[in-house]
Amino acid sequence: MTEIINLEQIKSLLEINEVASAIEHGFISYSQGKTQIPMPGNLGFNNPQGDCHIKYGHIHGDPYFVIKTATGFYANSKMGRASGHGMISIWCRKTGMLEAILLDNGYLTDIRTAIAGQIAARYLAPKHVHKIGVVGAGMQARVQLEFLKSIIDCNEVLLIGNSMESTKACQNYLSNVGFTVSIAKNVKELCQSCNLIITTTPSVSPLIFGPDIAKGTHITAVGADGNNKHEIHEEVFSKADLIVVDSVEQCSQYGDFSYALKLNKQLQSRAKELGSVIEQPQSFGRTNQDQISVCDLTGLAVQDIKIAISIYQKFLDKLANRQR
Amino acid sequence: MTEIINLEQIKSLLEINEVASAIEHGFISYSQGKTQIPMPGNLGFNNPQGDCHIKYGHIHGDPYFVIKTATGFYANSKMGRASGHGMISIWCRKTGMLEAILLDNGYLTDIRTAIAGQIAARYLAPKHVHKIGVVGAGMQARVQLEFLKSIIDCNEVLLIGNSMESTKACQNYLSNVGFTVSIAKNVKELCQSCNLIITTTPSVSPLIFGPDIAKGTHITAVGADGNNKHEIHEEVFSKADLIVVDSVEQCSQYGDFSYALKLNKQLQSRAKELGSVIEQPQSFGRTNQDQISVCDLTGLAVQDIKIAISIYQKFLDKLANRQR
Repeated sequence: MTEIINLEQIKSLLEINEVASAIEHGFISYSQGKTQIPMPGNLGFNNPQGDCHIKYGHIHGDPYFVIKTATGFYANSKMGRASGHGMISIWCRKTGMLEAILLDNGYLTDIRTAIAGQIAARYLAPKHVHKIGVVGAGMQARVQLEFLKSIIDCNEVLLIGNSMESTKACQNYLSNVGFTVSIAKNVKELCQSCNLIITTTPSVSPLIFGPDIAKGTHITAVGADGNNKHEIHEEVFSKADLIVVDSVEQCSQYGDFSYALKLNKQLQSRAKELGSVIEQPQSFGRTNQDQISVCDLTGLAVQDIKIAISIYQKFLDKLANRQR
Repeated sequence: MTEIINLEQIKSLLEINEVASAIEHGFISYSQGKTQIPMPGNLGFNNPQGDCHIKYGHIHGDPYFVIKTATGFYANSKMGRASGHGMISIWCRKTGMLEAILLDNGYLTDIRTAIAGQIAARYLAPKHVHKIGVVGAGMQARVQLEFLKSIIDCNEVLLIGNSMESTKACQNYLSNVGFTVSIAKNVKELCQSCNLIITTTPSVSPLIFGPDIAKGTHITAVGADGNNKHEIHEEVFSKADLIVVDSVEQCSQYGDFSYALKLNKQLQSRAKELGSVIEQPQSFGRTNQDQISVCDLTGLAVQDIKIAISIYQKFLDKLANRQR
């Protein structure tokens, strides 16, 4: 029998710290080649614009394989609907039977993306963050900051969104969870004032440029996950001391790093995977406070696999406890 | 709200003739380039052996896009379990919201595959079929024949399966639905005695060879859908007057035709898509009774899209009628 697990159940079963640790292990397994992760499936639409990603695969030794579908339809917000939706299916690796469906509406994609941002900041952000700059004022801006709270000792935020309305709404939200949030005049000002920068937009042309990035800055870019999306200019990568990507294969095909590669092929050999950074932080993480680091996250199936299996295991544990 | 539609509901909502007609239109749309159908996603496992296909896409103008997952784990039958499982998700093309999940356990994959076999036979089988040869004795052998009943005026079947046990079980099944079924000594005898041949096995080496195929024979090959599966030898394609594939792109990458292409690149220009045959049977279908024709079906997302949307529309109609 297939278990259908709804969003309310999912939220009650989510143990952030456990999932974050599982996702770190997932990144390591991926970078060690201990996974079967094909390139994501993708559909793109115009009028109205939208996209659909299918991320899926198996981590060697896991009892399940996982298929995650997430959509982003940005005109939804005009009708008061969330732009992101989705679901995850969990399959028995021995029989191919459908074990469970997580009706997460894209929630777990938001969470696992924020967790990846948290992991990137843990290994790459400077020791003393004086101001966090956030480009984009949607759901990801909110969750990225919420997940940074526990690991970065800085409440000062400079924010810029697509419209004043959405920026103010995000400012309110972040103020309510304990940040002191100013609104930036422009992205240039934001870049020049902050030493931890998070980009979370669906922009299709670069917003962040090399000359604006000061020594000792870390940038995590989570917006550009395909379909011509592009937030970080090539010169940022060229200028950076540390280039980190979630997947060299995936980031060479789309997202910010792929655009940088087109202009500067030599960047390829300088990019390290987040899994390698987690495994050997002394070799591949930040080693001094003047380094500029940039981490391009296109979203990796191991994140979806780990968060889904974690939820499902908790679900089964609860079921077993109830039946005892 | 996402509708969860179970197998019993699916069976009650399935209108075969309507779906067959919709699938014919789907093949035509595909061959006219009026679809967005990426290459299928794929996972493969060993020990126990299994595979998982993700077929997905959108037909221009449809209100939904569809993602179908189907698995095949062939050791399941030893434990009394079906080898195939699966599900289909249906998404709103305008909002990316998850409209419905069809918990079909792979049933609709069986049905749409059988419908494609029926369509191939309608346009390609000789006028007078004296004996139908079926290689493979699993679920697909059964449904292919059931779907041929309404369009082929022949009850004589020669059958061969992987084991005598499975072959006899299939013989019993087919006898009960009105066929007169003999068991072939070997595939060679089957090929030499039949002028309509259906192959439905997960074989990884060719079973059907050119010299055994007589004038006026049609072969539909549905077994080889990826993961090194291979039923039809290259010389069958070289000898055939008509080579038909469901998708030139897909069949050039895996399945029987891809193996033939490796040995004989000139076959590429001779292959026609089933959608073109349906659209212009006088140009691309059987035009005389001596022709040898071979149709390689790797399974196309348009089939999954059309059958899923048909079921969902019936579901919505029923819901609307109940509320009236």
